[in-house]
Amino acid sequence: MNIPASLERLVQELARLPGVGQKTAQRLAFSILRNDTARADALAAAIREVKARIRFCEQCFGYAEEALCPVCADGRRDPGVICVVEQPGDIYVIERSGVFRGLYHVLMGAISPLDGVGPEQLKLRELEARCADGAVSELILATNPSMQGEATALHICRVLGGKVGRITRLARGMPVGANLEYTDDVTLNQAFSGRQAFGN
Amino acid sequence: MNIPASLERLVQELARLPGVGQKTAQRLAFSILRNDTARADALAAAIREVKARIRFCEQCFGYAEEALCPVCADGRRDPGVICVVEQPGDIYVIERSGVFRGLYHVLMGAISPLDGVGPEQLKLRELEARCADGAVSELILATNPSMQGEATALHICRVLGGKVGRITRLARGMPVGANLEYTDDVTLNQAFSGRQAFGN
Repeated sequence: MNIPASLERLVQELARLPGVGQKTAQRLAFSILRNDTARADALAAAIREVKARIRFCEQCFGYAEEALCPVCADGRRDPGVICVVEQPGDIYVIERSGVFRGLYHVLMGAISPLDGVGPEQLKLRELEARCADGAVSELILATNPSMQGEATALHICRVLGGKVGRITRLARGMPVGANLEYTDDVTLNQAFSGRQAFGN
Repeated sequence: MNIPASLERLVQELARLPGVGQKTAQRLAFSILRNDTARADALAAAIREVKARIRFCEQCFGYAEEALCPVCADGRRDPGVICVVEQPGDIYVIERSGVFRGLYHVLMGAISPLDGVGPEQLKLRELEARCADGAVSELILATNPSMQGEATALHICRVLGGKVGRITRLARGMPVGANLEYTDDVTLNQAFSGRQAFGN
């Protein structure tokens, strides 16, 4: 194909990203070309820096630039409440909502026998260690509402039940803005069984 | 928000790209983080290089790394047929299809009085110059099937009619894989008026 090599290279590199097909990659590449050089340099620098600077927090295994991530290093967060998530990126989503003021613990995956991931491949020993001194009043399980996430939540309950104040799980039900007509049976089932008192 | 600064910076840089919202930017940033450093470096280098190397072809105004773009520099292409497109990126799409063996001419836009773009803002004088010696047997108008693209095509017809062998326009009609039920009236109209003999 008679396309300048550097342009074709950029399209191919962009097309390796998840959810980015050839056409999206082309569109992004043309946009980078049209933008001024400072903008493109800022993007290139941000990509390099994120790889150079980001490591895993020594306490919670979230993304960090120092030994501790910004959440673990923040003295105003409640160390008595730990929210357990599967992936470091999950912290980003919860932090963005501003709904949670405790600490996190990243499991680095979920139990999935088919993929060869058992409890020993997850950061569970480290979670047990954090709960060992009895200072954790609540463990909030925020694993995904999938088979793997549920299995992981059940396993944590079995291992840590009695060692922390209480173990809770994020509510399941209809997402805000959803439509009853299009809600699947399992979600509807959980929305009914988890129904709450309303009004006076 | 308690997010490492370099991660947040990458998300914000990615979110500036067209069609990339905050959530997509997060997903892309996490993917870049999970990939190995060589992959991220290749992407960063490709972004910098495309800005450093790409300029506009002196003849057709397509993307080029030398004075001439790969198409104009390719002696096997037919110089007697020129395909006129609005943007340099349009060449990429046509080249990818492999359907065309002539040369290109990029107008760098389309006539759009509302946006203050008249014929003099486009690379029309350069197109006239390329057609001046009478060597162009066919001018294929591949401007977009929009108001602006049509106005531009009509203008080129007026200016260059008689100076080139013939002027053609890409066929309008139903795109392959489309559904008659969902085809809009204007397209259907053009599909009927442009209908072609079929079978024996």
